[in-house]
Amino acid sequence: MKVQIARGTRDAMPETMLQRQRVVDIIRGVYQAHGFNPLATPAFERIETLMGKYGDEGDQLIYRILKRGEGGKRGEVDLALRYDLTVPLARVVAMNPSLRMPFKRYQIQQVWRADKPQHGRFREFTQCDIDVVGCEDPIADAEVLTAVDRALRALGLSDFTIQINHRALLRAMVEAIGAGDRETSVLVGLDKLDKIGWDGVRAELGRTAGLNEGQVDQLQDLVSVSGPEGLDALSKLGPAVDELRQVLELADALGLAPGAAVFSPTLARGLSYYTGPVFEVVSNQARIGSITGGGRYDGLVGMFGKTQVPAVGASLGLERILVVLEELGLLDGPKTVVQVLVTLFDTDSRPAALATVRALREAGVSTDLWVKRPGKLGKQFKHADQAGIPWVLIQGPEEAQSGVVKLKHLASGEQWTGPLADAITRLRA
Amino acid sequence: MKVQIARGTRDAMPETMLQRQRVVDIIRGVYQAHGFNPLATPAFERIETLMGKYGDEGDQLIYRILKRGEGGKRGEVDLALRYDLTVPLARVVAMNPSLRMPFKRYQIQQVWRADKPQHGRFREFTQCDIDVVGCEDPIADAEVLTAVDRALRALGLSDFTIQINHRALLRAMVEAIGAGDRETSVLVGLDKLDKIGWDGVRAELGRTAGLNEGQVDQLQDLVSVSGPEGLDALSKLGPAVDELRQVLELADALGLAPGAAVFSPTLARGLSYYTGPVFEVVSNQARIGSITGGGRYDGLVGMFGKTQVPAVGASLGLERILVVLEELGLLDGPKTVVQVLVTLFDTDSRPAALATVRALREAGVSTDLWVKRPGKLGKQFKHADQAGIPWVLIQGPEEAQSGVVKLKHLASGEQWTGPLADAITRLRA
Repeated sequence: MKVQIARGTRDAMPETMLQRQRVVDIIRGVYQAHGFNPLATPAFERIETLMGKYGDEGDQLIYRILKRGEGGKRGEVDLALRYDLTVPLARVVAMNPSLRMPFKRYQIQQVWRADKPQHGRFREFTQCDIDVVGCEDPIADAEVLTAVDRALRALGLSDFTIQINHRALLRAMVEAIGAGDRETSVLVGLDKLDKIGWDGVRAELGRTAGLNEGQVDQLQDLVSVSGPEGLDALSKLGPAVDELRQVLELADALGLAPGAAVFSPTLARGLSYYTGPVFEVVSNQARIGSITGGGRYDGLVGMFGKTQVPAVGASLGLERILVVLEELGLLDGPKTVVQVLVTLFDTDSRPAALATVRALREAGVSTDLWVKRPGKLGKQFKHADQAGIPWVLIQGPEEAQSGVVKLKHLASGEQWTGPLADAITRLRA
Repeated sequence: MKVQIARGTRDAMPETMLQRQRVVDIIRGVYQAHGFNPLATPAFERIETLMGKYGDEGDQLIYRILKRGEGGKRGEVDLALRYDLTVPLARVVAMNPSLRMPFKRYQIQQVWRADKPQHGRFREFTQCDIDVVGCEDPIADAEVLTAVDRALRALGLSDFTIQINHRALLRAMVEAIGAGDRETSVLVGLDKLDKIGWDGVRAELGRTAGLNEGQVDQLQDLVSVSGPEGLDALSKLGPAVDELRQVLELADALGLAPGAAVFSPTLARGLSYYTGPVFEVVSNQARIGSITGGGRYDGLVGMFGKTQVPAVGASLGLERILVVLEELGLLDGPKTVVQVLVTLFDTDSRPAALATVRALREAGVSTDLWVKRPGKLGKQFKHADQAGIPWVLIQGPEEAQSGVVKLKHLASGEQWTGPLADAITRLRA
């Protein structure tokens, strides 16, 4: 039997896990500072909870699970793996009508999509989401934008652009070119601009949305100016422009880096549940598509109950952020948690070595012990060095007689000899 | 549409999540102090990786996933949700022959079983595993036992028993009663002792393993004495007794609490992959079955490749531990991450309030702001109090004029007025 991992998935080996933990801790710290509380939902939902929320392309990528594990004789399917963290949140809100509003939560969990694996895109990946539920004021959108901006900067990223647009503005534009009845297909086409360029989008819009040359020209013209001038040019298209201005102003007051967010009239966002402002963060330092996306979805919770509840949120893609950080050399750090290896001089000294290991661990020093044949300290040092363990502790007959231990720092070669209690203090520092 | 969560699963709402995070952080801290490094594996594996590793009962509880999400026309199944963290670890070890041994890893992730939901048993639950791979010396078993003992004590649990037995000793007993060809069914029967008592086990062993009265008597006699005397009584049955004594002696040297581990000749453990010492931790303070289990499985990695690699590990069941901690009142802690609510006096003071929010967050103080209609401070205080936010900050026209802010501690009613910078220092302390 040839052993294989499932296609499109990866193990996170210790060194990678430690990097991920450092990154997630930073993101969590920023989210918490911004007043978001943690939430977790199950990996799978009832299949009807997920279907029909993401658009046709999304629905096709949902992993379906057989009923009670086996599916019975008819291979029945009643569960599905979470495709994002937003629909489960909407389900939670609908099921808990007494939640205190606004409900600000963060959620850092995996999602699964039966997508074609490619560079930076996996079938299992981690989303770091924040959402403000129950607040229709633009302050909520500003809160989300600012927290995302802060989180990315806390990770060391600085050169990125937050592209922002408004679904109502997009709708107004589609109506202005006389294609209001084909909004979804126009937006799906426009959303591919990054990947296939204007020539591709023009062809696509003709084919799938039935737009004629004149309509496509008009659309391309409407979306041709970005930034504040673009907003000015489109202000005749309704209140969405003003709402975007308010969001940007409030985000500015909350500390969004100046110039970080730019009005981008071609930004559409693939998911079908957005209703208001939408945004995406694109790194200017690495070519990997968007590293964060989000927007307002005031209709989603209402799909699960009688009450409409406004909501806005964002999702940081952990894997893509790790790719960018790696490319920028920002993922440095220890490759093991172990701070010291307690070496084994000979069989007789094992009890003393175990007592030392015990004392170090009880003091909170991450300690490993040599478990193979004793002796040959050089071999033990080499093992520690290769494992990335910074210190080794030696306790031979000589040291035992004087009631001391010897510490050696492998990178510098520095040595120190003294009582165990002092060694512990030294290692904890 | 009636909105429901998948049966046997639960959401972890913020208060619960904060409790879980505190518990997981403690467990992770102890695991790391003991020299275990983190690992994560994907939620699903190729179905053939999981099947045939857990025994028939286990196999039936594995959740199967349709191929590429949809399964195509024939409803093909090629993936399955992880049933535990041990088989995925064995797969990782088999796929990475150059791993530095011993490989000590911890893994805190969810697993899924299509089991009947009941008190403290869910279809999605979290295992906190440690394993030492590549070391056949009993020191590895002792490492695992000690780390588990320390982790539980660090959580505040103190009254529990680590029941320990040895698969080779069980095999020798089954052979001694002349039922060596029915080992699995005898152990499956014996494993139910906790649930159905001796009368039930006797009936079961007659029915499923075909044991006669005399054989059952013999077996019951062999397993009648636990603790050190039990080990003495069974020492004629082979080297397993000596191995258990060594494990206990080494664990003692590494700091296992005296008397915590007790030889329990009836302990069998359900999973089929164990080959050596096996153990379970039972809380003496709550009736909820075992909260931790583990053992040695020297044959599992070899099922995935040509090389046999010895391994031993343990799994803490997070949900059950939370139930015990809850019963003992050991789950106290804040119910929100938010430390301070910045109130809103009137519309005019909003810019000042936003600037204060920003300064607090940049200083790392978890801050929320009032986003509803301004004024009515009493209502804002009440909101903070109900949300568990300890402090409120007031910045009305009076304070603004004097360049100060007012802090109020809701539980004590204490108030303090001073510059924002001092308020930040106060909140960070």
